[in-house]
Amino acid sequence: VGTAHAAETTLPAAAVKTAEQLRDRALTDDTAYRVLDSLTTEVGPRLAGSPADQRARDWAVAKLKELGFDKVYTEPVSYPLWQRRSEHGAIVAPFAQPLVLTALGYSPGTPAGGLTAEVVKFDSLDALKAADPAQVKGKLVYIGFRMQRHKDGADYRFGSAIRTMGPPLAAAKGAAGFLLRSAGTDADSRTPHAGVTGFRDPRQPAIPAAALSNPDADQLERVLAYGKPVTVRLDLDCGIVGEYTGANVIGEITGRKHPDQVVAIGGHLDSWDPGTGAIDDAAGVAIAMGAAKLIHDLPKRPDRTIRVIAFANEEMGLWGARAYADKHAGEVGKFQLGSESDFGAGPIWRMSASVKPEARGAIAQIAALLAPIGVQYEPGQPGGGGSDLSQMHVRGMAALSLTQDGTHYFDWHHTANDTLDKIVPKELAQNVAVYATFAYLAAQADGDFGSAPGAFTGDGARE
Amino acid sequence: VGTAHAAETTLPAAAVKTAEQLRDRALTDDTAYRVLDSLTTEVGPRLAGSPADQRARDWAVAKLKELGFDKVYTEPVSYPLWQRRSEHGAIVAPFAQPLVLTALGYSPGTPAGGLTAEVVKFDSLDALKAADPAQVKGKLVYIGFRMQRHKDGADYRFGSAIRTMGPPLAAAKGAAGFLLRSAGTDADSRTPHAGVTGFRDPRQPAIPAAALSNPDADQLERVLAYGKPVTVRLDLDCGIVGEYTGANVIGEITGRKHPDQVVAIGGHLDSWDPGTGAIDDAAGVAIAMGAAKLIHDLPKRPDRTIRVIAFANEEMGLWGARAYADKHAGEVGKFQLGSESDFGAGPIWRMSASVKPEARGAIAQIAALLAPIGVQYEPGQPGGGGSDLSQMHVRGMAALSLTQDGTHYFDWHHTANDTLDKIVPKELAQNVAVYATFAYLAAQADGDFGSAPGAFTGDGARE
Ligand SMILES: [Zn+2]
Ligand SMILES: [Zn+2]
Ligand SMILES: [Zn+2]
Ligand SMILES: [Zn+2]
Repeated sequence: VGTAHAAETTLPAAAVKTAEQLRDRALTDDTAYRVLDSLTTEVGPRLAGSPADQRARDWAVAKLKELGFDKVYTEPVSYPLWQRRSEHGAIVAPFAQPLVLTALGYSPGTPAGGLTAEVVKFDSLDALKAADPAQVKGKLVYIGFRMQRHKDGADYRFGSAIRTMGPPLAAAKGAAGFLLRSAGTDADSRTPHAGVTGFRDPRQPAIPAAALSNPDADQLERVLAYGKPVTVRLDLDCGIVGEYTGANVIGEITGRKHPDQVVAIGGHLDSWDPGTGAIDDAAGVAIAMGAAKLIHDLPKRPDRTIRVIAFANEEMGLWGARAYADKHAGEVGKFQLGSESDFGAGPIWRMSASVKPEARGAIAQIAALLAPIGVQYEPGQPGGGGSDLSQMHVRGMAALSLTQDGTHYFDWHHTANDTLDKIVPKELAQNVAVYATFAYLAAQADGDFGSAPGAFTGDGARE
Repeated sequence: VGTAHAAETTLPAAAVKTAEQLRDRALTDDTAYRVLDSLTTEVGPRLAGSPADQRARDWAVAKLKELGFDKVYTEPVSYPLWQRRSEHGAIVAPFAQPLVLTALGYSPGTPAGGLTAEVVKFDSLDALKAADPAQVKGKLVYIGFRMQRHKDGADYRFGSAIRTMGPPLAAAKGAAGFLLRSAGTDADSRTPHAGVTGFRDPRQPAIPAAALSNPDADQLERVLAYGKPVTVRLDLDCGIVGEYTGANVIGEITGRKHPDQVVAIGGHLDSWDPGTGAIDDAAGVAIAMGAAKLIHDLPKRPDRTIRVIAFANEEMGLWGARAYADKHAGEVGKFQLGSESDFGAGPIWRMSASVKPEARGAIAQIAALLAPIGVQYEPGQPGGGGSDLSQMHVRGMAALSLTQDGTHYFDWHHTANDTLDKIVPKELAQNVAVYATFAYLAAQADGDFGSAPGAFTGDGARE
């Protein structure tokens, strides 16, 4: 590209050709599927801090070595240790019957014998905010917001806000407990959606909090509609019992020319415990490992290092991500480009980037290679790097957003139904193709993408 | 019909006209839906012998009275009292993780601390039959048959045979316990399918028996495929604790001319406990009540009695049905015609009948009225009367089979997902239209349909 400005970041023609081959090879490669199968079968559910936390780390170290990564290591991460032991719920009156629910992350347990209280219903977080504490005191607050399916999962913004902010708000108003209609789009499935609350700090006053499955929320609302007082018993044996030290697990394909410059990809290793965490987020781990493995298998190592990060405890508050960013913020300029997958394994249909202006041409070239496999580039939008890598992006790492089709993601997200059967191997392979293509091209670029401390502050990326 | 043979059963023209109006009215009537909503909301799950057994009977008596039935009464039925208290399962080795399962009806509990044993897998009941007892002794037998969706639910024949006959067969060969892949077509849902085993007699040697959800069965099979010994822990607190006396609940619209001659319709009142028994079988109860209510609301009572029977404890072995048939076999000749709904609330698409030859013309006339709403008459096939009324049919009651579209029935059957949201109100109304039409015409017929002791022995009806 003879007319390019000196500062322009460019992609060598040979790299583009190799990337094209990588992309096509990825579409028929099953490494990622086998990794995903292995993690969900051999470890299964892996709640942060549970005995499966250690097993998952052992698995990740062994798998990275087995795949031939040049360097495999861990970096410790500490987090509150929350345990789920048992959970039951029931309508006591006027129509006695069980309710299917799941305790939310950091929820304390109920007293022995359970907590029985009258239910007071709100339709939104705002309605609870506006409520007179006298309405709420001693009651079981229930918020009944219904999420609808969207390709980009837009409604999760509301559902997750209710789940995280609702319990502390209800506690502050003197509520005895908190229930919500699950933040999930599976309207007809009795699989409640787990997820974290805002009760992260054990010194904070907290109340028992749980999610009802959608049909159970329907049932509770039908019973409430009779207009009689409705009492519910909540029997949760769970809570924060101390602190735990886990680790981020990291594997690298070492760069030949610039080993200290890294392209960061990854996912999170932990999962909620009802399911085996296939879409959330064995998929992310598998996509990153599968993409890096394809690059590993090239005749030559890439110019820069490909770093796969399997983050610790994303689910209960980005603990691995924050520890990673705290530790590595000083080297943010060495992070060439990063993107993490944490939205299942539906086909990636949208790409956006936060990079320096002089790298826009290179990004457009990457996008041109991805267009034939269904990815549409939105040059006007920022790229946030994904859930955990967002923490490096806010420190100044150049980042992509690679958005999967999440139409059905919130049918299964954080439920017992997040299992291997939800993965469509061909769609997973398309994800690997996207990650392998961008990671390789970023590693081979002549020039950088603009990573520097605070480089993208205020770019509007939201993860 | 001037040329009719003297013995021919005929339908008066006025009755046909009224039946047509009833049919059309039924299509926009929501009585059945409101009944179904009421039973599943106010009683919820109603396992035979549980506290909800009594509540369901109270509900049925009150509902029949509220709907204006002329006569409402109960007839006692005794059955073994089986209780489910708690149930847990887990793979212990080589990959420790929980399994979602549900104890099967009449299963005994496991010893305190659970039963831990190695799994031995079979693909079919025949393979287990052929097995050397040495292969099975002390093991946890697992049968992995997969049901596929069919409009007529054909695969349930295999699934239910494994569930009922598998456990006694495994016990006879010395197995420690029994597991099956759920008899259900929801391949991707972690909702195990309850159901009865063949351990009805408490004196019979029995072993703990449970059903894995389909994804859990997939997981167990994946783990078995590693080729290492797989041990599973089963922790079931359940079992037969005595005998219980419930009742069939019966409501009648009393016939004006022949009050002692009855058209019998109904469903069963009990349900499995994971769900609220909407498709199985609040639907049957609601369809019968809704159809009878439309006939009740006509300006005049029908010539014969319309009898709605809400049977006790169908699920654990047709207890209400057998008690009913034992009590009423002597009056079988007074049962004009009967059919029961126990296959959900999908549209009825097929009708067949076991009647005397001289009533074939009347049946064809009924069928002609049902053809416009999607029911296809199969004159060559017998009619068995449905699950509970089959017991009257085998004694000689003339009967119809009215087959619903059951494509999705076994997605939800006997699971937590059998809830109100699975009912499509318009499809339920079509069922009511069919039942109201046939019941009214049978009540108004000039002549009978051939009921007499042993009249249909060997007709090939299978329910
Ligand atoms: Zn995630
Ligand atoms: Zn998550
Ligand atoms: Zn049934
Ligand atoms: Zn049933």
